[in-house]
Amino acid sequence: MKTYITEDFLLSSQTARDLYHGTARVLPIYDYHTHLPPDQIAEDRRFENLFEIWLAGDHYKWRAMRTNGIPERFCTGDATPREKFDAWTRTVPATLRNPLHHWTHLELLRYFDIETLLDESTADEIWERTKERLAAPEFSVCGLLKRSNVAVVCTTDDPTDTLEFHRRIRASGTLATKVYPTFRPDKALAVNQPEIFGPWREKLCAVTGSECRSLSGFLDALESRHAYFHENGGRLSDHGLSHCYSNPCTTGEAAAIYERARDGKDVSAGDQHAFAAYLMIFFGRLDARRGWVKQLHLGAQRNNNSRLLKALGPDTGFDSIGDWSQAASLAGYLDALDQTNELPKTILYNLNPADNYLMGTMAGNFQDGSVAGKIQFGSGWWFLDQKEGMQWQINALSNLGLLSRFVGMLTDSRSFLSYPRHEYFRRILCNIIGAEVDRGELPNDGEMLAGLVRDVCFENANRYFALDLD
Amino acid sequence: MKTYITEDFLLSSQTARDLYHGTARVLPIYDYHTHLPPDQIAEDRRFENLFEIWLAGDHYKWRAMRTNGIPERFCTGDATPREKFDAWTRTVPATLRNPLHHWTHLELLRYFDIETLLDESTADEIWERTKERLAAPEFSVCGLLKRSNVAVVCTTDDPTDTLEFHRRIRASGTLATKVYPTFRPDKALAVNQPEIFGPWREKLCAVTGSECRSLSGFLDALESRHAYFHENGGRLSDHGLSHCYSNPCTTGEAAAIYERARDGKDVSAGDQHAFAAYLMIFFGRLDARRGWVKQLHLGAQRNNNSRLLKALGPDTGFDSIGDWSQAASLAGYLDALDQTNELPKTILYNLNPADNYLMGTMAGNFQDGSVAGKIQFGSGWWFLDQKEGMQWQINALSNLGLLSRFVGMLTDSRSFLSYPRHEYFRRILCNIIGAEVDRGELPNDGEMLAGLVRDVCFENANRYFALDLD
Amino acid sequence: MKTYITEDFLLSSQTARDLYHGTARVLPIYDYHTHLPPDQIAEDRRFENLFEIWLAGDHYKWRAMRTNGIPERFCTGDATPREKFDAWTRTVPATLRNPLHHWTHLELLRYFDIETLLDESTADEIWERTKERLAAPEFSVCGLLKRSNVAVVCTTDDPTDTLEFHRRIRASGTLATKVYPTFRPDKALAVNQPEIFGPWREKLCAVTGSECRSLSGFLDALESRHAYFHENGGRLSDHGLSHCYSNPCTTGEAAAIYERARDGKDVSAGDQHAFAAYLMIFFGRLDARRGWVKQLHLGAQRNNNSRLLKALGPDTGFDSIGDWSQAASLAGYLDALDQTNELPKTILYNLNPADNYLMGTMAGNFQDGSVAGKIQFGSGWWFLDQKEGMQWQINALSNLGLLSRFVGMLTDSRSFLSYPRHEYFRRILCNIIGAEVDRGELPNDGEMLAGLVRDVCFENANRYFALDLD
Repeated sequence: MKTYITEDFLLSSQTARDLYHGTARVLPIYDYHTHLPPDQIAEDRRFENLFEIWLAGDHYKWRAMRTNGIPERFCTGDATPREKFDAWTRTVPATLRNPLHHWTHLELLRYFDIETLLDESTADEIWERTKERLAAPEFSVCGLLKRSNVAVVCTTDDPTDTLEFHRRIRASGTLATKVYPTFRPDKALAVNQPEIFGPWREKLCAVTGSECRSLSGFLDALESRHAYFHENGGRLSDHGLSHCYSNPCTTGEAAAIYERARDGKDVSAGDQHAFAAYLMIFFGRLDARRGWVKQLHLGAQRNNNSRLLKALGPDTGFDSIGDWSQAASLAGYLDALDQTNELPKTILYNLNPADNYLMGTMAGNFQDGSVAGKIQFGSGWWFLDQKEGMQWQINALSNLGLLSRFVGMLTDSRSFLSYPRHEYFRRILCNIIGAEVDRGELPNDGEMLAGLVRDVCFENANRYFALDLD
Repeated sequence: MKTYITEDFLLSSQTARDLYHGTARVLPIYDYHTHLPPDQIAEDRRFENLFEIWLAGDHYKWRAMRTNGIPERFCTGDATPREKFDAWTRTVPATLRNPLHHWTHLELLRYFDIETLLDESTADEIWERTKERLAAPEFSVCGLLKRSNVAVVCTTDDPTDTLEFHRRIRASGTLATKVYPTFRPDKALAVNQPEIFGPWREKLCAVTGSECRSLSGFLDALESRHAYFHENGGRLSDHGLSHCYSNPCTTGEAAAIYERARDGKDVSAGDQHAFAAYLMIFFGRLDARRGWVKQLHLGAQRNNNSRLLKALGPDTGFDSIGDWSQAASLAGYLDALDQTNELPKTILYNLNPADNYLMGTMAGNFQDGSVAGKIQFGSGWWFLDQKEGMQWQINALSNLGLLSRFVGMLTDSRSFLSYPRHEYFRRILCNIIGAEVDRGELPNDGEMLAGLVRDVCFENANRYFALDLD
Repeated sequence: MKTYITEDFLLSSQTARDLYHGTARVLPIYDYHTHLPPDQIAEDRRFENLFEIWLAGDHYKWRAMRTNGIPERFCTGDATPREKFDAWTRTVPATLRNPLHHWTHLELLRYFDIETLLDESTADEIWERTKERLAAPEFSVCGLLKRSNVAVVCTTDDPTDTLEFHRRIRASGTLATKVYPTFRPDKALAVNQPEIFGPWREKLCAVTGSECRSLSGFLDALESRHAYFHENGGRLSDHGLSHCYSNPCTTGEAAAIYERARDGKDVSAGDQHAFAAYLMIFFGRLDARRGWVKQLHLGAQRNNNSRLLKALGPDTGFDSIGDWSQAASLAGYLDALDQTNELPKTILYNLNPADNYLMGTMAGNFQDGSVAGKIQFGSGWWFLDQKEGMQWQINALSNLGLLSRFVGMLTDSRSFLSYPRHEYFRRILCNIIGAEVDRGELPNDGEMLAGLVRDVCFENANRYFALDLD
């Protein structure tokens, strides 16, 4: 008898099982935040083997492998795909109780109908079976999206992106999944990093046909890109910040800082901070004006390992959870926009679970009755994107705000095999609700509870983001 | 069959049920911290409808309504009472998993014998039935206190308060509940806010018949009010602080700062801080001298929304959880008093659950064997005043101190319908104990466990506060 | 029927019971971090009564007694041993839900076969029965270690220690338990506390026969002690820090600071910080060079009560949990060592549970595939050394790293009766695993799970520390 990842995986009560199988399981997926590559969707990319789809770019897995004593050669180095896969299979049994063990076997099960546990002894068999499957026509990128019942994908894009692939996807008209860009202007804040800001500004000039000599030219260029994303169906922006910037400078000061950065001159940390604060207000207003949703990702401490950053570059598994004070600067930012009625719908994602309650109450400070669930406390993110982390977020949100208005789960993923993460979330949500019904802590009203599940898993996001689904 | 808020609501084991029904349920309530209005007790106020008793002043509910997309007009604005009630009934179903759903239905059940869920479809019926009930003689303020078996209520009062209503309540002698004032001198620290400090100082002068020209006159006036509260049965003080003040100034410096404030001159933030630190030492010594209990409420970040603060004033639902460093300044404050053996009995209330363990250990630093449970880690407060929050506080206290010496729950409420919150706490407490007995983690000794429950729910508070109950 | 601390104490499922009784229970104990006194091992000390072994030096118990209103005389004062024991027996029933209630009765059961609950009424009987038992030959220190199946004990030692007792233990060859020293050079950082640094430096000079005039002489002396510990089998170092030091000074600056301290002159807090940062890099390199494990104990706020510190000295129960920012300085320290490939194996112990997730991710930043589990997130420590705290640590580690590579539990104890703490940990570990198997969240593969338990409870530590066990 199957005992691991059964039909009722994570569902401890009959109520939970009924809710999941009867309601949550069949809902389409509204994946409003991902790092999926739009070019691969446009080209309907195919994958030759599990290495390509699993191991080529997943820093979660590299991190586990390094912890397991696997040399870098087999993570990001020059070992062959199969050698890397074998190294991963040696690590999988060591991930017991880590979400990777769940993700791995859930993906094998849902996409490849494989129930066998992955380890060295099953590596061969699983490598071959998955290779065969991946060769089937329905295992292209578009096939995987269809198979996973994905209604919407939002990608994450630089303002300078031409959105060429988004346009091709839309033009081809063959994919049922709607694919929209997200405006992520992090590099616009990097005025103290000339090696980043310089080339990026050039690209902005090129794509807008503007010289951006002055700050106002720069802001106009950014505004035109925002408008361009809007024309292409984008309705979300996103910012990765360790914490909010406070104390914006004046326009005059911002202009002077901008000109120094434009000319490749040094910008002090203090000036960068003030400029970034200034620009974040500008971006907030853009979003408010066009009815967009702003996403703030707060709390990551990045690039901690300078030896391996130098060797491997960023986003290779050396980021972690920071412990900055968040409350005052975040309130200050939201309040600055709100004072002039220019606070857009906003989602707060938090990486340090010690701040969950803080974030849950912060959202409440800026609910003003204009839109249901206007300020969202977003789903468990990155290191919190697992059972315990999701439960904490769901509980904090429930206790401090309205779970019923929550826009639900996202994958935040670079992989087209990540969709079982929505299944995982839905099972956890149904399990929480089921347990409380059985303890008499929630009314045992099937229709009401199914409505709650439907709203959190799909309908709220659909209403909130208001992306074009036709 | 009833499935929601049954007789055994929150009680998952037989041991828990026995403890609750056999011991906890019938104990009187010792509500040592509230914001109940003494005038309404003195006048034995009556309420015409649920709006008056539920919605007129409850920022928890307004916050939920705004999150649900209800315009301000129906929260604090000029809509009619019935319109506001209707807006609330549209929000109640959206509060599933929020404690408001429990509070609401627990209050309907305990005070009005209503088992129906509140929503738009039941709004009419419930509005009418509750209106009828509220018209009955036993539904006055005093009737509600009696019905809830409340032995003690401590209100929260400004030092300048004449305590006229407390005196009237005592003089009338008709109310079994003892009502005592709490000395809350927050405004005395506000030397950098002339619009607050000025009029408040005038009031202090008036009520004490003193000119308070010098700092020593000011301190004498405060001391005389402390004595006056003592004469009127008060044995508690209370302070709302984001975090403790450190580095008190000298008496000479305090005198200079006081004189500037007295004359309406600007006081810098730094000077305010030093003056407040100085005054907090003074207040601590007053409490120690008279054997009072000092309450410190730490961790709230207030008035985050300046647009709505301007429109609606403070305490309207725009406060949240802060993330200041607490440990060093709190230890410094308690130590400063302890060095001269002038640390009073003290309760630490914490708003950021990330600091629960910190607070639990902080209390232990200043237990000196002079009084059992001298320094208390107080009950879950405000945003933590729900199942998860209460469990966290009970567990932190149990693991780091002595649960058996805990003075238990308080309502912190402005509403005379809040007493089921004590029931809620007691059920949670019994449930925690019951589960551990059933798992063999606590001795299965009924008498011992009943004693623990009695102590936490009533006896400890009675011993600790030593208020006159006869 | 026995209901408290039964055979299946803390084990809620059959899977958990099988894992504990079938695998975990019989494994030897690898106690790699203790404060056991090596002289008492060398002399095979005997204890006359429970006071000597329980109450003479246990600040956990004193703290509980003070909280229970027991005057200092009965904690650390001049009351007789029996009076102190009686005071403790009055406190034990008040510790319900505190881990002390578990420890106490687990120790009575495992060492003395006493199932009776300890309180005033059983004090006489238990005092006498335990006294008798303690008189038996197998109740000496060495007997207790044997009885508890302790394979390894690491003590905590100052660099100036002669390790005379360690050498005597090894020379005698009678004890099966291996006893090794740990290099703990905290006093080397105390250049701003002449009353500590001065005498300690003299001792260092004496034991190394060096004058340590210059910084380089001082570093050479420390290096020679490190080598001496290595010769004596030591493979661990340890540091008690509120938080990591950042911004080390240059060697020239360190030399100047050292010379001031050597001459008993004032050293500023800033200079002490910079010097300590410098020295911590030095210590890290020593450990890396010899393949040692470095332990960092982070987050304690010590000596909060100056009145009782003055009366009783440090480590008497007045320490608590601090809330410093940890992430940036810790990453900075580890990175500084890693940049030159001189980061040793390192264990991060965390005292503030709000930082558990931060610590779990921090470890991941510096896993480089060179050693499995190179950077460890250490076991629940001090105030977190109880069921809830251990579960949190196990869950954070599992979710963010590899539980399967964890080196497991330590006692951190000063008492030879503390070994049931390993039993406690093992039961909790098996219980967590069992519950997940029963919910289908872990594969139900007995051999795989038993392997996980064996690794965490013994084998990983044995591999990681690589102490000589023959």
